[in-house]
Amino acid sequence: MKKIGKVQTQFIEFNDPARPLQLRVGGALERFTLAYETYGEMNADRSNVVLVYHAMTGCQHAAGLNRSVPGVGDRWISELHDGWWSGFIGPGLALDTRKLCVVCVNYLGGCYGSTGPASINPDTGRPWGSSFPVLRMSDIVDSQMRLLDHLGVRQLRAVIGASIGGYLSILTAARYPDRVRVVIPIGTGAETTIYQRIINFEQITAIEADPHFKGGEYYDGPAPSVGLALARRIAHKTFVSLDDLRERARGEVVSHKPPHGWYEMNHPVESYMLHQGNKFTSRFDANTYLRIVDAWQWFDVVRESDAEDCHAVYARCRDQEWLVFSIDSDLSFPPEEQQKLVKRLKHAHVPVMWLTVHSDKGHDSFLLEPRLFAPHINQALAR
Amino acid sequence: MKKIGKVQTQFIEFNDPARPLQLRVGGALERFTLAYETYGEMNADRSNVVLVYHAMTGCQHAAGLNRSVPGVGDRWISELHDGWWSGFIGPGLALDTRKLCVVCVNYLGGCYGSTGPASINPDTGRPWGSSFPVLRMSDIVDSQMRLLDHLGVRQLRAVIGASIGGYLSILTAARYPDRVRVVIPIGTGAETTIYQRIINFEQITAIEADPHFKGGEYYDGPAPSVGLALARRIAHKTFVSLDDLRERARGEVVSHKPPHGWYEMNHPVESYMLHQGNKFTSRFDANTYLRIVDAWQWFDVVRESDAEDCHAVYARCRDQEWLVFSIDSDLSFPPEEQQKLVKRLKHAHVPVMWLTVHSDKGHDSFLLEPRLFAPHINQALAR
Repeated sequence: MKKIGKVQTQFIEFNDPARPLQLRVGGALERFTLAYETYGEMNADRSNVVLVYHAMTGCQHAAGLNRSVPGVGDRWISELHDGWWSGFIGPGLALDTRKLCVVCVNYLGGCYGSTGPASINPDTGRPWGSSFPVLRMSDIVDSQMRLLDHLGVRQLRAVIGASIGGYLSILTAARYPDRVRVVIPIGTGAETTIYQRIINFEQITAIEADPHFKGGEYYDGPAPSVGLALARRIAHKTFVSLDDLRERARGEVVSHKPPHGWYEMNHPVESYMLHQGNKFTSRFDANTYLRIVDAWQWFDVVRESDAEDCHAVYARCRDQEWLVFSIDSDLSFPPEEQQKLVKRLKHAHVPVMWLTVHSDKGHDSFLLEPRLFAPHINQALAR
Repeated sequence: MKKIGKVQTQFIEFNDPARPLQLRVGGALERFTLAYETYGEMNADRSNVVLVYHAMTGCQHAAGLNRSVPGVGDRWISELHDGWWSGFIGPGLALDTRKLCVVCVNYLGGCYGSTGPASINPDTGRPWGSSFPVLRMSDIVDSQMRLLDHLGVRQLRAVIGASIGGYLSILTAARYPDRVRVVIPIGTGAETTIYQRIINFEQITAIEADPHFKGGEYYDGPAPSVGLALARRIAHKTFVSLDDLRERARGEVVSHKPPHGWYEMNHPVESYMLHQGNKFTSRFDANTYLRIVDAWQWFDVVRESDAEDCHAVYARCRDQEWLVFSIDSDLSFPPEEQQKLVKRLKHAHVPVMWLTVHSDKGHDSFLLEPRLFAPHINQALAR
């Protein structure tokens, strides 16, 4: 079976004054672009499409090889060239492209080709910066439904996503219950936890306190890289297991050169984390990061589904099939969060299957260990 | 039984060129001051003294009422006026001042009266700032032994401390095995955990990245309060239980005014954390904070005990009695850390009793719930 080879990002520009994208907090986007990729062929009735939501700092390039994305420039660093879910998407893999057509879209507000704060505002000819409209998770979902309309896909075979990509999957199922047959949330939850709120808030203030941030108007000068790197480190420790992190850091050389003060690092995990943070700043835009964290802080599945209450959200999903994955070592979205989600689904009589994979990789297991997930995903999509 | 009433901080200046305080990393302090308080009377042979180590951002004022400390100025805010361990120290309490004399000393490098980076360097007439010597935990211990020498205390009835005050207790027992009869570490451990390393490093870089920090030379201008507040928030979440934090935040008004950017807070826990961070900056010095976190990162019980290996550290402690406390909901020093410590003690045949208190307060239980600890402390000190 051939793996997926070279792929290209495609772009669609929406520009219909009669049908702007209404945003939840207020205002509307009349003109915006989405960057997306597809893998596998759509069948005649377009009933074999799986929508994959990437995670917070992910991108539309989920599988195969893509060495450049027009307009993204230096941000398209080499570690993005191989699709982030190449182990899950392809012939014979969890999402089998011999039968399925997989679509992945860069979030609205993103920095990998979809319109976001770093894009040029057509009304001013300058980057949007802080004037980019405030986004909620439901806006990201709605924008992707526009793309499905354009592609002629009425109903998805499945929607799947991990981490906050899981939020988007759940929200898609609840906002558009007729458009989804199978829902596969991985390492996610039905709400923002108190721990997430706290560390997200740390990250927001770390970025906003960087003197280069300038309230989001930094595109003419240096980027707020120190703040963004700290934000990334604060998040990164929750994506790995700490035992695994100790192992990963082992053997790395400690640079005693302090980043910007007198403190001398004394342990490989410090240089490992510093490296993770700094590497990230070369591939991501601080304003995009803030917009997505903001939407995470405000995530409210009831309000964003326009539902009366929590029960009503899931009651709509009775004709769908749900497959929920937990990762036992997940510090970012611990298994109790999926347990709450499953409880609500069962209470609303939604058909649901719940699996916990046992891994020493933490939250990142969803990126690293396709073998733990593939058989059940195959089975759910074969029915 | 009368509670402890008004107390005053006392100061001792060491200034003996023939006997400077040799520091572990290098250099020596010839002239330095320690700020301390005592509660209860020393007996004739000075055998009833208990040394209490405060935690990272604590101070010498452990019990009673003290409205001002000479030289500390505005940093002596009202929340410090009542001693931080007033529920533990006093007639009939865990540390019973009818029988014991309790001593608590502000760390060398501190900002509550002991010599630290904000103090005037007598050689230059200006604040030490970044030129203050690098400290290790063993230097803090050694400085306090100098005070005991001065007070004529050869052997302590007990040494007790929670959090990194626990590190100092363990180190005192290992460095000066003949000077300690009972050792009571609470919510602490025998080493720096990987999680602590990571979040300490976040805090260090948050402070150092504040443009007001200026490498530690900020005493002529504004303090690096934004960085210090973020550092405090990063730490604070590990001191409370998250369930408790949710409760504490409930009912607090959310100010939507963003601290320094466009992000609008949307949950009481954010304003609660913001308040905790900001309040802290009015009472603490950023350089002191960095020095203590630095000593935490480098903490090495073997090296700092001048021992050959881990077994040798605890083998010295066979004539002592140890009473180790765990707090089941402690996120900062989880029970596994005390378990490791106890295992090493037992392996070295040190008499040890280990208790886990069950609390919904997290690490802060050691400040808030004397009833959970008092009976066993009483018993250990009565023998």
